Amino acid sequence: MTPPRVGLWLLGAHGGVATTVVLGLAALRRGLIDSTSLVTALPQFDGLKLDSFNQFVVGGHDVRRTSYRQAVHELQQRSNIFEPGLTDACLADLDDWGENVRVGTVSNSGPTISKLADLPEAHRADTGRAVIERIQNDLRDFQARHRLDQVVVVNVSSTEPPFALSDIHSSRERLANALQRRDQTVLPASSLYAWATLDLGWPFINFTPSLGACVPAIEELALERKACHCGKDGKTGETLMKTVLAPMFALRNFRVLSWVGHNIFGNRDGLVLDDPVNKASKVKSKDQVVSSILGYKPQTHVSIEYIESMDDWKTAWDHIHFRGFLGVKMMMQFTWQGCDSILAAPLVLDLARLALLSQRRGEVGPLKHLACFFKSPIGVEEHDFFKQFGMLGEYVRGEK
Amino acid sequence: MTPPRVGLWLLGAHGGVATTVVLGLAALRRGLIDSTSLVTALPQFDGLKLDSFNQFVVGGHDVRRTSYRQAVHELQQRSNIFEPGLTDACLADLDDWGENVRVGTVSNSGPTISKLADLPEAHRADTGRAVIERIQNDLRDFQARHRLDQVVVVNVSSTEPPFALSDIHSSRERLANALQRRDQTVLPASSLYAWATLDLGWPFINFTPSLGACVPAIEELALERKACHCGKDGKTGETLMKTVLAPMFALRNFRVLSWVGHNIFGNRDGLVLDDPVNKASKVKSKDQVVSSILGYKPQTHVSIEYIESMDDWKTAWDHIHFRGFLGVKMMMQFTWQGCDSILAAPLVLDLARLALLSQRRGEVGPLKHLACFFKSPIGVEEHDFFKQFGMLGEYVRGEK
Amino acid sequence: MTPPRVGLWLLGAHGGVATTVVLGLAALRRGLIDSTSLVTALPQFDGLKLDSFNQFVVGGHDVRRTSYRQAVHELQQRSNIFEPGLTDACLADLDDWGENVRVGTVSNSGPTISKLADLPEAHRADTGRAVIERIQNDLRDFQARHRLDQVVVVNVSSTEPPFALSDIHSSRERLANALQRRDQTVLPASSLYAWATLDLGWPFINFTPSLGACVPAIEELALERKACHCGKDGKTGETLMKTVLAPMFALRNFRVLSWVGHNIFGNRDGLVLDDPVNKASKVKSKDQVVSSILGYKPQTHVSIEYIESMDDWKTAWDHIHFRGFLGVKMMMQFTWQGCDSILAAPLVLDLARLALLSQRRGEVGPLKHLACFFKSPIGVEEHDFFKQFGMLGEYVRGEK
Amino acid sequence: MTPPRVGLWLLGAHGGVATTVVLGLAALRRGLIDSTSLVTALPQFDGLKLDSFNQFVVGGHDVRRTSYRQAVHELQQRSNIFEPGLTDACLADLDDWGENVRVGTVSNSGPTISKLADLPEAHRADTGRAVIERIQNDLRDFQARHRLDQVVVVNVSSTEPPFALSDIHSSRERLANALQRRDQTVLPASSLYAWATLDLGWPFINFTPSLGACVPAIEELALERKACHCGKDGKTGETLMKTVLAPMFALRNFRVLSWVGHNIFGNRDGLVLDDPVNKASKVKSKDQVVSSILGYKPQTHVSIEYIESMDDWKTAWDHIHFRGFLGVKMMMQFTWQGCDSILAAPLVLDLARLALLSQRRGEVGPLKHLACFFKSPIGVEEHDFFKQFGMLGEYVRGEK
Repeated sequence: MTPPRVGLWLLGAHGGVATTVVLGLAALRRGLIDSTSLVTALPQFDGLKLDSFNQFVVGGHDVRRTSYRQAVHELQQRSNIFEPGLTDACLADLDDWGENVRVGTVSNSGPTISKLADLPEAHRADTGRAVIERIQNDLRDFQARHRLDQVVVVNVSSTEPPFALSDIHSSRERLANALQRRDQTVLPASSLYAWATLDLGWPFINFTPSLGACVPAIEELALERKACHCGKDGKTGETLMKTVLAPMFALRNFRVLSWVGHNIFGNRDGLVLDDPVNKASKVKSKDQVVSSILGYKPQTHVSIEYIESMDDWKTAWDHIHFRGFLGVKMMMQFTWQGCDSILAAPLVLDLARLALLSQRRGEVGPLKHLACFFKSPIGVEEHDFFKQFGMLGEYVRGEK
Repeated sequence: MTPPRVGLWLLGAHGGVATTVVLGLAALRRGLIDSTSLVTALPQFDGLKLDSFNQFVVGGHDVRRTSYRQAVHELQQRSNIFEPGLTDACLADLDDWGENVRVGTVSNSGPTISKLADLPEAHRADTGRAVIERIQNDLRDFQARHRLDQVVVVNVSSTEPPFALSDIHSSRERLANALQRRDQTVLPASSLYAWATLDLGWPFINFTPSLGACVPAIEELALERKACHCGKDGKTGETLMKTVLAPMFALRNFRVLSWVGHNIFGNRDGLVLDDPVNKASKVKSKDQVVSSILGYKPQTHVSIEYIESMDDWKTAWDHIHFRGFLGVKMMMQFTWQGCDSILAAPLVLDLARLALLSQRRGEVGPLKHLACFFKSPIGVEEHDFFKQFGMLGEYVRGEK
Repeated sequence: MTPPRVGLWLLGAHGGVATTVVLGLAALRRGLIDSTSLVTALPQFDGLKLDSFNQFVVGGHDVRRTSYRQAVHELQQRSNIFEPGLTDACLADLDDWGENVRVGTVSNSGPTISKLADLPEAHRADTGRAVIERIQNDLRDFQARHRLDQVVVVNVSSTEPPFALSDIHSSRERLANALQRRDQTVLPASSLYAWATLDLGWPFINFTPSLGACVPAIEELALERKACHCGKDGKTGETLMKTVLAPMFALRNFRVLSWVGHNIFGNRDGLVLDDPVNKASKVKSKDQVVSSILGYKPQTHVSIEYIESMDDWKTAWDHIHFRGFLGVKMMMQFTWQGCDSILAAPLVLDLARLALLSQRRGEVGPLKHLACFFKSPIGVEEHDFFKQFGMLGEYVRGEK
Repeated sequence: MTPPRVGLWLLGAHGGVATTVVLGLAALRRGLIDSTSLVTALPQFDGLKLDSFNQFVVGGHDVRRTSYRQAVHELQQRSNIFEPGLTDACLADLDDWGENVRVGTVSNSGPTISKLADLPEAHRADTGRAVIERIQNDLRDFQARHRLDQVVVVNVSSTEPPFALSDIHSSRERLANALQRRDQTVLPASSLYAWATLDLGWPFINFTPSLGACVPAIEELALERKACHCGKDGKTGETLMKTVLAPMFALRNFRVLSWVGHNIFGNRDGLVLDDPVNKASKVKSKDQVVSSILGYKPQTHVSIEYIESMDDWKTAWDHIHFRGFLGVKMMMQFTWQGCDSILAAPLVLDLARLALLSQRRGEVGPLKHLACFFKSPIGVEEHDFFKQFGMLGEYVRGEK
């Protein structure tokens, strides 16, 4: 039996994360790198029928005029990653896949993202319905041209401002009607993509804090179309650490008094998050985990600052103040110096493989066993990283 | 039914950890402090028949001429802990319990510990057998005078140098014979205490990296006498962090390249560890956990330095260098600023309660469910803190 | 010749800094502490005719209903400083000096400070002129009752919001007229105090970032009255470090790319600075020094966050990103864990002694040789700590 | 007038520092990099008659079989520095200069350095005299072939073990006699190079902690030959920070209680320093500065550990514990993450320029105005970086 041919469709296809995903995929296919940092390469995933990396074809949407060559070059110059030897060997793949990138939409993504979008078509004012159809045409065309058995869509584009739901979002029918209107404010871009994908019955992964599929009407649509999805907001660095450390403070019965986290970084994502409106989505996603794990709310503070010189290197400083026996106050501090795209990209590949498997197995709705990958896992209250990983472990054992 | 009266016998009774245990116990009995930092006060331990804090009577062995009042005062002055309001209210209890402290032994504890021991009786050259009998007399006398149902012995004395086992340690009988000889080198003090305790069928807890009950002959004795024991080396600070963080690096498939840990502190324990011979025991205990959890050996470095001005405040700086996707090197660093006695004392109380329960339930040999409390858990290979805690959780659920 | 009797008048007399000043002064008089952290106790100040600590009498203004006993107790409880042995020996002095504290004013200090002021008289709506007269009456009364040769006034009260100057502030005469009006917005409280003090010909020290004497009209008044003054904003912690480190980056010709500083602390000053309006004054004062020393503007970011559990312990984390030879980016990070009042108080004593000396020597206007004590030294562009200290050294050598 | 042609002769010519010097020199000549991190490029050095970078020709001694191409490649691969675009443009220069590298000596450099030396001629057992002559022949040949007006010799080779001086080192004559003997232990390699250089009347710079010219007999020789020299041990990172921060602690009259410094790095220098014998030289050089600046000796601890994964990135963690007013203990910690070669190389170029100027001006003996470049400046007790820089500033002003 020939293995299935699968498509990976990236929203924000030329961004830092997507470029790293694509380069990594090419390098893995060519055996140029090992599987470090891929969760699905751990021994406990052996025997699971995951797609191998050479079954993948890449495409995507973007709103900026650029190319993989340019994106790779920029990451090399600014962030000092990607050895030339490695990238040279992969550029042919990247050029091929770059052919599959189509113009996306900035519909209702806020002014900061709009400003970055230099492709005029991305700004076309249209009904939500029309945008969805355009997206679906691009997706179906990609599938057809490459004769793909399955396609998974992953949102790795910039963070949108928070979006308030209203009555029109409560049912598939009402929302469908609203999308007919010439009204750009019905749904943000991330949710138009989610609708478009899930309506085709395809899996949708939201790696960002944007709204995506987290709309009752879209969740209803997913169930109707028997589609699965997961999100939100990949857990890559500081928040990962929080969900690793907070359980220790809880199990040792320390009383956390305050948890302060400062994040500085300088990539395009940072530029978008420098807009306080967009930042609000991210801070909310980062701030809730500690209280949720501890079961009480210590004073918390999360800041995210765009510091240009850091480029893709996100540095976090966390200061945890806690009370121990006999009322004595003690402290833990950590700094995390990680390259954002490098941390995110392997998780995107893991999620794509796991979501494609879920689709083949007929799983529908939010994929709760993938909670350990997300800051705000859909449908899961548990934030303790190790308990979340336990859920994934159980799923894997059940699958085999 | 009257609850049992229980005794807590501390080896190193006037040291920093023991003094904090005793002060904390008095404060808990009087309702002056809450249960922060006591693991056994977590909700999941509700319903377990643990002894309440006012069932405890304290006694112990020490080799220095001092008192609880003096030890408390020293910790207040040097380490800036213990509010006077709190200690004043507890001094009467401490004075009472101080009456129960007897002269211990420095037999074969190495020159650094010997030098600290200013009680001449502690240096008495004798057969191991004679020392054991003296210890047992002190223990039985304590039990009798206070009409105690049970007594648990906890080693919180200074770390001895490493001790090499030989043939004479392989069976209870051979070791019993050797202990008749006028030869101070047969067993270190910690093991004489272990023998004395387990021979009475009482539980023995080794909170230090010293040899204690980790001798085949003594383990055999424990089984014969149906006694239980646990250890070694309380997991309080930097090593706790290692066993919390290393699992994350493993589960995210990062490749840890090097893990460097520097510890500075200035209490009496630090003074003893400043002797490279005594330090060796501790470094070994701290160094193995990372490799064990990761399944491979990154370069590791552990240093422990006596810095007098730090007093009881142990500060650790750890630098973790790891490789992520596409070969990119990243870093995590943490500092842990904790007060050593304050971290250790509540765990001693937890272990005492749990070991007394085990004795009542007829458990024999090493108490493996207590692994999460130790750097080198006897009989357990698992170092992942969360898996260890899971073992304790299962035990607790089974007990209820 | 009898040494002069001198008065130290503290604005914010019961705040953390003032309380530490007063306790320190009492302890120094009684020989209970050494002179650590007093700059004027360095050998290079020997021979200068500075007032000794037992020549001082303390008084001041405050707007809260409290006492030194209560303030001391609060610092002990919350911030874990001041040994009971020490404070007990000094309480009599503190009680005596507490008798000299009068009700101050919150006139135009912003809502956050107003809210903290629970003494009704502090809120009395009045002309600026009337407030100034009330202040001057308090000052003259203090001098008379204690038969003081000189009195120095030091502002250690909470930071006011920034204040915009206008035409009425350009000359003493115009401002004097405006102060006759029933208009609370003519000057903030700190400037009313400055006017009141300098109008008497007495020295005024502004240890805060509030406006104080930094008004052309008030500077004119100081010259007329032959009074001296200095400020603004005591350089105690993170900013001190910036003015120590930035010169090194400059002299080694490193290119600083970004300098990020995060400050967390939990005292009353922090509470006031948590109001973004008041914070603005402080951030401005902290942010300018780096660019001024380097001669170019790297990206800078300064945050100040009120974290209640920190109490008086101000912790700063600074991340300095710089480019070296061949374009390589490198990093320095530091954390500064200092107790705010403890850092500030000795500098207040130093400044009081030095300003009293200046008054005796007939110095008039801003005391530029005191620049090394301030974040925003009045009349001095130099921020390099060592060059500033050099200016003080030259002054001292000239005086002797 | 044609500018002089000058030679830069590097001992350890293919090591990390030397390779970076050579690459930097090539890049500066070609205008590919700016002058960041070159002290002599600061405005205050304008007008001084320093040699421009295109007047330099490079040569040197090494004991390993390698080339600049290989050394550059290694630094690129392991330490992630040097962009290929930059190195490609400079390789022709490097190849040319590589032709001038001759076989050095490991005479009396200790077993760790000997083991690294794979050129057999470097191990030739010979009298000191013979080695010196061989070195001088190489130097003279270099000068002649390139028609150089001046040549400066800089030691950037690995650190030798400490060397104890005896009577034979007390005068030029006695040492000259001893060097005739077939005894390898009379002088270490660094001092043979120093003798050879100074005997020619040429300037010698010791950028390492090795003995070099710090021998009374060699200092006598320098005076006789009217040669100048400077050293020891370039002040590049952690020690630089110490000499920047300690003055602040002194001037603010803080009492430093302890200063702990941990250094980790993974380059060849680190490998040599991993030998405790060689490490001793370095630790001594790093440890003295703090006490010297403070005027008293706090507890200090310096460790240097070879951590392979760090490559050329030296990370230091320093923990400074100090007492402030009223006896309160406070802390400063810093981490310094710098690339060793990148930090050192520009200083080598600065020193070469300044020493060549000194030679032209007829300066003789130790160049004390260069103290700010060294951890252990010859003939200078002052360690305060800013005072040292002041000495350089005065010299420069005097020269112009």
